[in-house]
Amino acid sequence: MPADPDCIFCKIVAGDLPSTTIAETERAIAFMDINPGTRGHALVIPREHSRDLLEIAPDDLAACASLAQEIAGRAKDRLGADGVNLLNCCGADAWQTVFHFHLHVIPRYKDQPEKDALRLPWVPAPGDMDDIAAAGKELS
Amino acid sequence: MPADPDCIFCKIVAGDLPSTTIAETERAIAFMDINPGTRGHALVIPREHSRDLLEIAPDDLAACASLAQEIAGRAKDRLGADGVNLLNCCGADAWQTVFHFHLHVIPRYKDQPEKDALRLPWVPAPGDMDDIAAAGKELS
Repeated sequence: MPADPDCIFCKIVAGDLPSTTIAETERAIAFMDINPGTRGHALVIPREHSRDLLEIAPDDLAACASLAQEIAGRAKDRLGADGVNLLNCCGADAWQTVFHFHLHVIPRYKDQPEKDALRLPWVPAPGDMDDIAAAGKELS
Repeated sequence: MPADPDCIFCKIVAGDLPSTTIAETERAIAFMDINPGTRGHALVIPREHSRDLLEIAPDDLAACASLAQEIAGRAKDRLGADGVNLLNCCGADAWQTVFHFHLHVIPRYKDQPEKDALRLPWVPAPGDMDDIAAAGKELS
């Protein structure tokens, strides 16, 4: 898919908008999120425009996952992160705000609230097993 | 890496623990999370044991990402989800509780709090650009 002239991430790929780019591969690039959740929060995107997880080509998805893995390792090795979260938001109702596929790579820091104030987005608790089975049947 | 005899996800792969499995591929399986964040919350894991994002083999990571994409599509088509989040937790300090790599596939529902009470784990706001640049330099 060609670059979308209205897409800010396509403009970053093309070098027409500034970014703090930290890694580049044939299919993907990684750059710093300017609205970070924690210290070192980065984004990994495909060079080719695709709107979201449902649209991205398999090779681009694999390339983004691989680069995110690389950046996660750097976050531990170079920033001293204690853990890392990957997050993808697919659709406005899942908090997507830029409609060019991106994976958030979010370093985590234990007991360092000045670097990391992330909170788990849900409270894990046993679900209704009948409804889990019913949803599972629909997804099978 | 061989199955870890103490790993509950290896036991699910082997069929030694029950699960609501919804999809299987050569390298990965998907099954329902029993502590769901939203209706239809599923997990995608590699058949081969690997502890986390830092350890998983590239082919297994790509296979999990691809299967997660497939399940995300089903969540929209079959459950009527309005969006989907993917989440990986790498390390106890990033909320990982089972130490066999897994991707959460979390369907999202607009204006349906009975199905979806997820909250964004951070408040996006402009960061300190000097510190973003410094972290970016360390990650480059």
